Amino acid sequence: MNNFEFYNPVRVVFGKGTIGQVRKLIDAEKKVMMVYGGGSIKKNGVYEQVARALKGRDLVEFGGIEPNPLYETCLQAVERIRTEDIGFLLAVGGGSVLDATKFIAAAACYEGGEPWEILTTGGRRVKAALPLGDVLTLPATGSEMNCFSVISRRSTQEKLAFGSPLVYPVFSILDPETTYSLPKKQLRNGLVDAFAHVMEQYATYSVSSPLQDRQAEAVVRTLIDAAGDVLGRQDYDSRASFMWAATCALNGVLSCGVVQDWTTHGIGHELTAFFGVAHAESLAIVMPALWQHQFEQKKGKLAQLARRVWHVIQGDEDSQARAAIEKTVEYFHSVEMPTRLSDYDITEADIQKVVERFGQRGDVLGEHKNIKAPQVEEILKLCL
Amino acid sequence: MNNFEFYNPVRVVFGKGTIGQVRKLIDAEKKVMMVYGGGSIKKNGVYEQVARALKGRDLVEFGGIEPNPLYETCLQAVERIRTEDIGFLLAVGGGSVLDATKFIAAAACYEGGEPWEILTTGGRRVKAALPLGDVLTLPATGSEMNCFSVISRRSTQEKLAFGSPLVYPVFSILDPETTYSLPKKQLRNGLVDAFAHVMEQYATYSVSSPLQDRQAEAVVRTLIDAAGDVLGRQDYDSRASFMWAATCALNGVLSCGVVQDWTTHGIGHELTAFFGVAHAESLAIVMPALWQHQFEQKKGKLAQLARRVWHVIQGDEDSQARAAIEKTVEYFHSVEMPTRLSDYDITEADIQKVVERFGQRGDVLGEHKNIKAPQVEEILKLCL
Repeated sequence: MNNFEFYNPVRVVFGKGTIGQVRKLIDAEKKVMMVYGGGSIKKNGVYEQVARALKGRDLVEFGGIEPNPLYETCLQAVERIRTEDIGFLLAVGGGSVLDATKFIAAAACYEGGEPWEILTTGGRRVKAALPLGDVLTLPATGSEMNCFSVISRRSTQEKLAFGSPLVYPVFSILDPETTYSLPKKQLRNGLVDAFAHVMEQYATYSVSSPLQDRQAEAVVRTLIDAAGDVLGRQDYDSRASFMWAATCALNGVLSCGVVQDWTTHGIGHELTAFFGVAHAESLAIVMPALWQHQFEQKKGKLAQLARRVWHVIQGDEDSQARAAIEKTVEYFHSVEMPTRLSDYDITEADIQKVVERFGQRGDVLGEHKNIKAPQVEEILKLCL
Repeated sequence: MNNFEFYNPVRVVFGKGTIGQVRKLIDAEKKVMMVYGGGSIKKNGVYEQVARALKGRDLVEFGGIEPNPLYETCLQAVERIRTEDIGFLLAVGGGSVLDATKFIAAAACYEGGEPWEILTTGGRRVKAALPLGDVLTLPATGSEMNCFSVISRRSTQEKLAFGSPLVYPVFSILDPETTYSLPKKQLRNGLVDAFAHVMEQYATYSVSSPLQDRQAEAVVRTLIDAAGDVLGRQDYDSRASFMWAATCALNGVLSCGVVQDWTTHGIGHELTAFFGVAHAESLAIVMPALWQHQFEQKKGKLAQLARRVWHVIQGDEDSQARAAIEKTVEYFHSVEMPTRLSDYDITEADIQKVVERFGQRGDVLGEHKNIKAPQVEEILKLCL
């Protein structure tokens, strides 16, 4: 096992009818900016619940955060914070709203140059941030229990991540009933996103971490088991399992002492930035191809995954590892998630844009640091 | 799944050679009281490492904390804190030292009457505590990543627990190499203690918590797999797995949204208080008998445990559940842990003391609140 540090101070309040607790979780003295997205929270009753809970409090609203939240939009929120005396940010929505809120929290206190630097330096320059909390309505990104955020910039077609312990939510309220009104496509995206998060921390090579391996397998098995009910009906137990599994997929527990990859996210972000493919859609395209491309390096863990999660007991390590790739693609298809670039009409000519960017930036990806622009091209060709 | 709240702000620093980090983890301005036990840390080099790391800092020592730490001893530490300007408590040792330090931290700031009230009221009256951190040398209790503490009182032969978010360690340094010098008996106790912690949160009845069930199974399977190497040799990987598993057994993750029991601990504490049986020893005696006594109520989860952890696939639910009890006893015996009262020369006459205390206190135990003094007697008779 590798050495590690684990620190996660997020207070999770989980369950039916918990949204009202937002009142006691926010300091009554602080002026709150409520950040949200396209207004779905006004249709599903969540806005109403939050507004009722915070009745009488000093509250302003900032709506209009996009999926793959835009830097340009976040800067408008920062502008408002500078003119009003905001002391707390409350994100109400899914991972995009929360990621935007984390960035706004850091950007509002940023004393360097342009706040975009927060992203180009991965968060290392964040020295202060406004406190924030959230009411989560979409299980997917895990942002509710980590200190990471991914922001897109329209003007340059870039999508970059940052992390800082200063942007851990003070609290996250997770009421599975808020997911009842989600469209099937968003549920599907969440089921795939959470699965991919676990796998980026698992499908590498073993450094003797039997507990972490089993904890990871616990999360993906839970997602796979819940998927049918999550997509098929409004059932509290499966929504609750899904919601908690998505949080546990990326709250730092699974990465303790293990080797991580994150190549799928690195390439996937570019597919989103250039072609507008949803985040989870991009992961479902890249991950199986990456595993094929890095088969020799990853086959030990993939075979273990096949044995433990899908009970594949026959065959040698190679055939079990191949079974893991097949079963993963089957899982994606079972939730109606496409897995090819051609499903989005992205061609071989298109992928050159992505390859060029990796070449320009000189990124080196993968747990073995063996994936550069030429390998990105090979992987994307496997996705056509 | 039941509603739950999860909050755990402990910073875990895990791995080889991490003890030196204690220097940067403690505010240099604060006077530190280092709390430890019988001096084993002076033999195994841990004291030396801590002293070197804190060289030049304002540091006083308080040694002599016993296994099953005594209230009387803790009060001596509180007395010293009141005469010296201590700003931080550093526990160096196992769960007993840490539990004592938590109590000292709360008692030093207690403004009620006698500090024993902290224990009789379960920690509800704790309004302030000194900050504390620890260097853990014994994987067992999980105290390093929770806010609980158990203290014994010599004068009344009582052993009581308290919990308060104010006594979460600010940091816990876990270096698996510190366990190399532990006697086999302490390793054995840790392997059993951690197993029992998981089971108190698992072996009840299902409220649809598939992820938490699998997370619990992950911890016990890891303990079982590691046990042979832990007891047999000085092997880093198995010690690291054991140490992290013992922490994860009782850091709040496994109890999220599930039904808990803690009867085994309730009865076990009395065996320790009256007869001096070590904590883990008491658990190994009570748990199998409790499961036998509450068989109908617990058999669903026990059967699942047998299937998932020991791959018992034959037989009906009843026989699988019985297999779980047998396998648990086998696990205890495999680490050379006795499981009967007679192994400690405790007789049927002796157990009346325990039964009387439950009668006097009017305690009601168990996830169904169906265990009072008469049932405690029945359970203890099964342990003879």
